[in-house]
Amino acid sequence: MGRVYVYRRAHFSASHRLFDPQLSDEKNFEIFGGCSNPNGHGHNYYIELCIAGEPDPKTGYVIDLKKVKNILRVQFLDKVDHKNLNVDVDFMKGINPTTENIAIAAWRQIAPSINEGKLYSVRIYETEKNFVEYRGE
Amino acid sequence: MGRVYVYRRAHFSASHRLFDPQLSDEKNFEIFGGCSNPNGHGHNYYIELCIAGEPDPKTGYVIDLKKVKNILRVQFLDKVDHKNLNVDVDFMKGINPTTENIAIAAWRQIAPSINEGKLYSVRIYETEKNFVEYRGE
Amino acid sequence: MGRVYVYRRAHFSASHRLFDPQLSDEKNFEIFGGCSNPNGHGHNYYIELCIAGEPDPKTGYVIDLKKVKNILRVQFLDKVDHKNLNVDVDFMKGINPTTENIAIAAWRQIAPSINEGKLYSVRIYETEKNFVEYRGE
Amino acid sequence: MGRVYVYRRAHFSASHRLFDPQLSDEKNFEIFGGCSNPNGHGHNYYIELCIAGEPDPKTGYVIDLKKVKNILRVQFLDKVDHKNLNVDVDFMKGINPTTENIAIAAWRQIAPSINEGKLYSVRIYETEKNFVEYRGE
Amino acid sequence: MGRVYVYRRAHFSASHRLFDPQLSDEKNFEIFGGCSNPNGHGHNYYIELCIAGEPDPKTGYVIDLKKVKNILRVQFLDKVDHKNLNVDVDFMKGINPTTENIAIAAWRQIAPSINEGKLYSVRIYETEKNFVEYRGE
Amino acid sequence: MGRVYVYRRAHFSASHRLFDPQLSDEKNFEIFGGCSNPNGHGHNYYIELCIAGEPDPKTGYVIDLKKVKNILRVQFLDKVDHKNLNVDVDFMKGINPTTENIAIAAWRQIAPSINEGKLYSVRIYETEKNFVEYRGE
Repeated sequence: MGRVYVYRRAHFSASHRLFDPQLSDEKNFEIFGGCSNPNGHGHNYYIELCIAGEPDPKTGYVIDLKKVKNILRVQFLDKVDHKNLNVDVDFMKGINPTTENIAIAAWRQIAPSINEGKLYSVRIYETEKNFVEYRGE
Repeated sequence: MGRVYVYRRAHFSASHRLFDPQLSDEKNFEIFGGCSNPNGHGHNYYIELCIAGEPDPKTGYVIDLKKVKNILRVQFLDKVDHKNLNVDVDFMKGINPTTENIAIAAWRQIAPSINEGKLYSVRIYETEKNFVEYRGE
Repeated sequence: MGRVYVYRRAHFSASHRLFDPQLSDEKNFEIFGGCSNPNGHGHNYYIELCIAGEPDPKTGYVIDLKKVKNILRVQFLDKVDHKNLNVDVDFMKGINPTTENIAIAAWRQIAPSINEGKLYSVRIYETEKNFVEYRGE
Repeated sequence: MGRVYVYRRAHFSASHRLFDPQLSDEKNFEIFGGCSNPNGHGHNYYIELCIAGEPDPKTGYVIDLKKVKNILRVQFLDKVDHKNLNVDVDFMKGINPTTENIAIAAWRQIAPSINEGKLYSVRIYETEKNFVEYRGE
Repeated sequence: MGRVYVYRRAHFSASHRLFDPQLSDEKNFEIFGGCSNPNGHGHNYYIELCIAGEPDPKTGYVIDLKKVKNILRVQFLDKVDHKNLNVDVDFMKGINPTTENIAIAAWRQIAPSINEGKLYSVRIYETEKNFVEYRGE
Repeated sequence: MGRVYVYRRAHFSASHRLFDPQLSDEKNFEIFGGCSNPNGHGHNYYIELCIAGEPDPKTGYVIDLKKVKNILRVQFLDKVDHKNLNVDVDFMKGINPTTENIAIAAWRQIAPSINEGKLYSVRIYETEKNFVEYRGE
């Protein structure tokens, strides 16, 4: 029937601070501006998964989005929602939580669990104006 | 001048029921959950067409979006808006109305009428969180 | 501390048909147009509750929105989501499911359970362009 | 000419933790759930001011929104954007940063500076689903 | 059955220039800034009507929104969509096209035609961040 | 670490008129309809840049979005916001301001200034329903 791209979007609220621990607070402020406020700040993030594959001729699904919703919750949302990304999230330890790095980390958390179709891209929206996409390239 | 991708978005309201007529209601419920409710449920769907081509040097248009609006209405919206996708739509007869299958069917309805530029993708949004894209691949 | 208005928004997908059972299909079509399609059509509805009251000096809450979320789910969403509003919903039996009537019915389902603050208004969005508000007046 | 209500919307990103310092972490978790995560979490907040008054017959403005934008920035946004609401904001000291309390505090910060028309309401959106309004009542 | 508030939203694209013809271009720029650019600028405006009344017990409608759509088109949208508000619109002649003044003018154009229920408010969105409401007060 | 696509979205308000100066007003109306209204009309445009590259291992950024924000402002927004695209914008002189042509012109204005990562695409939204993308192909 051909290849179809299936998208699932979800929300999480988290706080973060951008900084390089090898640098001073001043230097961090110079690079990251208000984003390096020592006490952190936060966002309503959105994550958008895209999975590519052929629809199953019986169900008409590339993958049941209820399964995707579940994988997304277990592998990602439960670990980041209402958390501090610098401190509370094991798979972000030692990683500066820029939107770029969150997208790459999300891909690594989620891709191995997608067994019907293949994970094609992960988008992270930090705000309505700033967002990134990672395609595992 | 180079290739430009032109998008047109439109809305339709429809009801549907996901089910495989060869299976029992119980089995359908097991696979499709609440989406197989025998009396149906519904959505405010959005369709988003993308047409790729070079802008005409005179008009600056890849294709006049008023034409696209018209094709979309005649070939698709008039047949699905305020309809039951399982029962009322000739080109969905015998097809399980998953978002994947609606996107493929929409492509087949619309692609032959696009004569300036070429249809590049069709997106169907079932909700803000679930949507699919088909590119004729 | 003064009165604060607290809002909670939620989503449900449902199908419906507008018609008066005492009239013919032709007469119904004359009044309700495509909305009276015998096989129904559907929407992604949004419901928006507003509860007014003084914040509790200890918690800073008018009412814990987790409670509101729960009341909304039990009293309303579980009964209408992925349903046919003409057939599947006990509290809509015999009621023409216009957006006006859904809002009034939602108020009656939900208001008695709000015990901190008072239900102030119920909004139902049928589409982005059409919505109604009921304030129990 | 009559009374007109003028609205101005703006965005800020902040982190917060809901908790009552007189209670244990366990008790706070019981009341506030994930919102009391000790390391905080965050949101993309929106603030929406409404100012009511008669348009000036010369300018056609109730109040020049450039002035409102400025007042909003100086009195509120510069103090909360990219901040931790529990720690970094002087006018929130000792206040549990629920959305209700943020709205009341914002009113107190902003109302005295509105000299053309009168501040009519302050809305704070914590997420798309949860928001509050305060009218100085 | 009680009072219900029914809303209808629509879109129009228009250009305008804010200025007082009795003042110099410099003075106008001082008051209106970039909004007084002599060659104009433009917006995707949204208008949102609210009509209040009791639903008809037969139809369940306060007023058929197809009627409202029609009134809105004939009395307002056809006269402003794809127009220059300073030059092309008879009912804006001699009026500085601030959002406040557009809302008042829209009320006057539309209110007399609403015969089921009563026009309760008119909102004009100039951008996502700036909008006004007029209630005929 | 792999390739990441970074997006930045911004807003501008402008007016325009679609027309070919070599044709009569009638002929222009035949081709462009209401979009060729001699006194112009306008839009709230959105521009969305996408920049592709590898995140810097130190900062975790493909490119600091504060830099992108600045480039976008200096090279594009300051020249088009609150302007008439037919008359006020040097880089649109002699170009029919269709959305296609605005996207191509924006690419040419912005691409040379992007020195970390590479400009991958420019999207221009004329309305919520009509938008185009140019990728420098």
